[in-house]
Amino acid sequence: MASTLKPVLLCLLFSFVLIFRLSSSIQHPLDHLTPAEFNMVRTIVKNANPSTTTTYNLTFQYVGLDDPDKQAVYLWQSNPENIPPRRAHVVTRLNKQTHDIIIDLSKRSIVSDKVYEGSGLPILSLDEQGAATELVLAYAPFKDSVERRGLNMSDVVCSTFTIGWFGEKKSKREFKVNCFYTEGTANMFLRPIDDIKILVDLDEMRVSQYLDREITTIPKAEGTEYRLSHMKPPFGPRMNNIATVTAGGPGFTLEGNTVKWANWEFHLAFDARVGPIISLASIYDLEQHKYRRVLYRGYVSELYVPYQDPREGWYQMSFFDNGEYGFGLTAVPLEPLNDCPANAVFIDGYLANQDGLPVKTSNALCIFERHAGDIMWRHTESQLPGDIREVRPEVSLVVRMVATVGNYDYILDWELKPSGSIKSGVGLTGVLEVRPVTYTNADQIKEEAHGTLVAENTIGVYHDHFINYYLDLDIDGDANSFVKTNLVTKNNTNGKTPRKSYWTVEKETVKTELDARILLGTKPMELSLENPNKKTKVGHPVGYRLLPGFFTVPLLALDDYPQIRGAFSNYNVWVTPYNKSEKWAAGDHVDRSHGDDTLLTWTNKNRPIENKDIVLWYTMGIHHVPCQEDFPLMPTVSGGFELRPTNFFEYNPVLKVIPPEQVPWPNCTAKCVGFGGLLNLNGPVKLN
Amino acid sequence: MASTLKPVLLCLLFSFVLIFRLSSSIQHPLDHLTPAEFNMVRTIVKNANPSTTTTYNLTFQYVGLDDPDKQAVYLWQSNPENIPPRRAHVVTRLNKQTHDIIIDLSKRSIVSDKVYEGSGLPILSLDEQGAATELVLAYAPFKDSVERRGLNMSDVVCSTFTIGWFGEKKSKREFKVNCFYTEGTANMFLRPIDDIKILVDLDEMRVSQYLDREITTIPKAEGTEYRLSHMKPPFGPRMNNIATVTAGGPGFTLEGNTVKWANWEFHLAFDARVGPIISLASIYDLEQHKYRRVLYRGYVSELYVPYQDPREGWYQMSFFDNGEYGFGLTAVPLEPLNDCPANAVFIDGYLANQDGLPVKTSNALCIFERHAGDIMWRHTESQLPGDIREVRPEVSLVVRMVATVGNYDYILDWELKPSGSIKSGVGLTGVLEVRPVTYTNADQIKEEAHGTLVAENTIGVYHDHFINYYLDLDIDGDANSFVKTNLVTKNNTNGKTPRKSYWTVEKETVKTELDARILLGTKPMELSLENPNKKTKVGHPVGYRLLPGFFTVPLLALDDYPQIRGAFSNYNVWVTPYNKSEKWAAGDHVDRSHGDDTLLTWTNKNRPIENKDIVLWYTMGIHHVPCQEDFPLMPTVSGGFELRPTNFFEYNPVLKVIPPEQVPWPNCTAKCVGFGGLLNLNGPVKLN
Repeated sequence: MASTLKPVLLCLLFSFVLIFRLSSSIQHPLDHLTPAEFNMVRTIVKNANPSTTTTYNLTFQYVGLDDPDKQAVYLWQSNPENIPPRRAHVVTRLNKQTHDIIIDLSKRSIVSDKVYEGSGLPILSLDEQGAATELVLAYAPFKDSVERRGLNMSDVVCSTFTIGWFGEKKSKREFKVNCFYTEGTANMFLRPIDDIKILVDLDEMRVSQYLDREITTIPKAEGTEYRLSHMKPPFGPRMNNIATVTAGGPGFTLEGNTVKWANWEFHLAFDARVGPIISLASIYDLEQHKYRRVLYRGYVSELYVPYQDPREGWYQMSFFDNGEYGFGLTAVPLEPLNDCPANAVFIDGYLANQDGLPVKTSNALCIFERHAGDIMWRHTESQLPGDIREVRPEVSLVVRMVATVGNYDYILDWELKPSGSIKSGVGLTGVLEVRPVTYTNADQIKEEAHGTLVAENTIGVYHDHFINYYLDLDIDGDANSFVKTNLVTKNNTNGKTPRKSYWTVEKETVKTELDARILLGTKPMELSLENPNKKTKVGHPVGYRLLPGFFTVPLLALDDYPQIRGAFSNYNVWVTPYNKSEKWAAGDHVDRSHGDDTLLTWTNKNRPIENKDIVLWYTMGIHHVPCQEDFPLMPTVSGGFELRPTNFFEYNPVLKVIPPEQVPWPNCTAKCVGFGGLLNLNGPVKLN
Repeated sequence: MASTLKPVLLCLLFSFVLIFRLSSSIQHPLDHLTPAEFNMVRTIVKNANPSTTTTYNLTFQYVGLDDPDKQAVYLWQSNPENIPPRRAHVVTRLNKQTHDIIIDLSKRSIVSDKVYEGSGLPILSLDEQGAATELVLAYAPFKDSVERRGLNMSDVVCSTFTIGWFGEKKSKREFKVNCFYTEGTANMFLRPIDDIKILVDLDEMRVSQYLDREITTIPKAEGTEYRLSHMKPPFGPRMNNIATVTAGGPGFTLEGNTVKWANWEFHLAFDARVGPIISLASIYDLEQHKYRRVLYRGYVSELYVPYQDPREGWYQMSFFDNGEYGFGLTAVPLEPLNDCPANAVFIDGYLANQDGLPVKTSNALCIFERHAGDIMWRHTESQLPGDIREVRPEVSLVVRMVATVGNYDYILDWELKPSGSIKSGVGLTGVLEVRPVTYTNADQIKEEAHGTLVAENTIGVYHDHFINYYLDLDIDGDANSFVKTNLVTKNNTNGKTPRKSYWTVEKETVKTELDARILLGTKPMELSLENPNKKTKVGHPVGYRLLPGFFTVPLLALDDYPQIRGAFSNYNVWVTPYNKSEKWAAGDHVDRSHGDDTLLTWTNKNRPIENKDIVLWYTMGIHHVPCQEDFPLMPTVSGGFELRPTNFFEYNPVLKVIPPEQVPWPNCTAKCVGFGGLLNLNGPVKLN
């Protein structure tokens, strides 16, 4: 009895410690808003606008943390008594005007309330999108159109599509509602009713344009289903039962929203607009006996998806998934064991709905230790006696969120490695955006189809995904420089050896913003952020290097309307001086914006960036030429980049890593499993 | 009792079935040679050369399978009674001449024995490299030099370095022996005795040049040790105990050297020169109810590493790790749990030594199911009622080998995905090649150092790694075409919409070899191999696409000697008509070769490649600017590429994947663990 009791007690102890830690945690200045704070914001804003009578006159489009000043956060880090003012940033729509409101949560008061006069419109709320589709489904002319097509109204589902900007002076708050026919399938996006144009005015919540065009094909439902329970044989291949298991519970701790794992410490927040935010990522330096700053703040700042069919009905299809739809707003609950492995811990996310009330997204984030079977470092020395072989297996920590923006599912990963690398990856899966056609075979296509015939009557339309990362690196302090290390070929002129050539490096510290705009792939170079004020013992400025992932040049004309708005894709790399108000690469209010407030317009100021607090913006892109394998659901395509320490440490920071104890598996009795404790095998552990 | 007996019986049954399968396996035409066959080859060659009296007059430099004709292999596949002639390819050195010998193993006879008259010299044997270093260690002038430096002879270790070709008419079979001082460290490569030049003539096995130059620094041992048992505190970070576990034993079967897993089937061989060879990779098509051909043969054909210090002592440092040293010859035993995860299965490799005798490399290969926590595909449909969410976790199969070529460790992975993708990756770790200097701080460096000061007195020399993959794809048959899908910007001229531009694709079937030479990154394009004779139901030629990994332009002058030999790095992509004799991108005999037999010279013939049996050659490269983190042992840098089905399947081939049963973990009693059966947790399972 005694031998089985011990692990059970340990499990209980573990759970207790966890609960204790969570309940005792103090609020961090970068914590996302709590449900109580969302409620407080709502009350303050509603009280300040007592005349508001109907729901649609005052709507909450965005509620999130108003970032405290960076120096205030660092001051708090050095002394937690220096609590920076805690503020919320609220975007409301009131009487057809957009308000940017700053609220002091400690003083429970409005700091400022400004009517936004720029070209863009605020992020869409889920509620108004729902209301608009309901409006259309109840709209008599639409019902008539459905009936005229012989379709069943109960199988019609609608979705919302932003319409961009095409040169008009002032844009109304309007979007398109496109409808789909779901009879016989859950894959609505593959069955568009492409021949009805419906515009909805959001401020007035009414159908502002309705056009029933010539009836076109709806692609058939057959072969579109993706639910296991609804598909027909043959099935396969069969996957083996395999899992990642962890002895001794999760290898990380979560105190409040601060994650500590291996040599890393960082803060994790969840935001309605950008989803996960990694802040204050610092790594412990064994030699300096302290944590050293790496990343002050990192997140996806925008995702721009221009479609490539310029014809009526499709030319407007260019989406800004963060600024228009919100990555946090579209975050979906993660499925234990499938979206995240068996050893994952899940965290809920909270957002404000259109009425300002807090809404929970269960399992919005997960954190897990990744053990992919990779090797951290190794060497066999066969030239020396004594069988010298040292191998360290790789383990990293992953933070994951999935945003399902309509048809597409974006898997967002942040991965921290003990070697100091920060990787970020995005996986693209979900359903294609398709246009119905009469073609059943590619041979029939004689004119430009703007996509691939992925199935009968179904064109998967060409498009791009350009994803921009905001990377406010503060390498060992906030004054950093952006350095190009150019690799240049030289002729050998030493006259002593027959070698004709070699390459060497020429370092170039970039002085101003315009010289920091880089299209990758044109010249061999390494790119890094260095701290010119801190040097290693052998004299190198400490730094971090960007190892780009797939990078892609924009193919639209730079003066085309979508590209003006998505100008952050004109270059892969940009560097700006830190400016609290420059947070999102396509600007603050993106829906129907005119591109007058973007990374391009900011950097046109050509501000100095040498030995300053600077921000790196990295744009990763993919041109998507659909193929049949993408039908009816796309196998994930992944890409990512890495920020890697480069002369940041005196030597390999994982040289002296303490390998895991090689205990036999499993090392825990079955009784322990249920606790999610010692052997975390049995699905979701929840920490919040 | 009955309940615990059952799994034990299942374990026993499983082991029995495995043994039965292995013992009953029939030889595959692409199997590597068996120990018995190596012995047979040795006897036949020795018998044919009875006058040979000393070991060094007749040496076996390479013994491997002489590939049967492709059509003969396919014929055998369709009817196993059609056994192609089984032949060995033997490269010997006999009386200072290189012989290419073909032996018929069935008839036990020599088919041909040709003296090779080209410029290159054969791959080095491990034995002659060992003999040369012993020779140097016993060489009196060398001992004097060591004494003159006040060094302890017992701490001196030597290694061999090929010296390339620099315009001489005929190259002798010579290499350099560089020596290192190991006092106080196992990291010999960081302590070069850089001031003694020693050449050894291999055919005569004598020191052919000896030059004791001005004495230079030897970098200190401090900080170079990497053995856990020999390092000093502080240690960290501590890694959590984490493992990948598999229920029901390995998810794949190995019958002979044929691996079956999920929807894949392929043959795996081990070769002295190139290491792992993946052959006859076919994927089961649910719709067509059959396996379909993808990759006839894939392997690393060459790895070229030019160093960038053009000065005396270093200008010759440009290595061809396959053609000079052999990836199979330098394969090291893999360490269970660290080199490959807990669920891996290990396979031994066999090679011929210099005397022709078979030598075993234990655990030369491992195979494991990778479960990295990734998502195969997913979609959440929040616009339809009923909580629609389907997620499939990613599992893939990995074949791994590690080649330690002196200082560098190369981790070679082949990864097969159920979605039809074949990925290949290479991880670079191990120790830098360094040059001693007097500098202790970067500030002291006033002249070109040709590298980074990675520690006091230690320059990590700039260099490249260019790795070339031989990819004989046979997409649904052997007649394939190479197709560029160019992405081109168009002006919108429809006059009906305000959109100014869009992009579309223009497909171009490449007719001849010269047009298939491609430097990636210059133009947006997709590259694929298509079978123009097989179409999908909607009319697309079936194909596979190359998704490149890191690609790198060569920086040496194209007429520089190392680059002439490593000309396969002039382009990232090449396509040739299948030719059994064109196997290795830098030619058959690479040591000191003059570059007259390479991928470049072959493709200069500009042969037709449209709708032919063609081979894709892909060169991946990395420019390595060392940094302090690479000292004293480099954290792994990884890269890779993907071959992805593109209109090969009618639809997503993992749409109907059968997910693993979600049994609770662990699902097996502790008693079962020891069998390595039902729950494969306890380290290496061995199948050969």
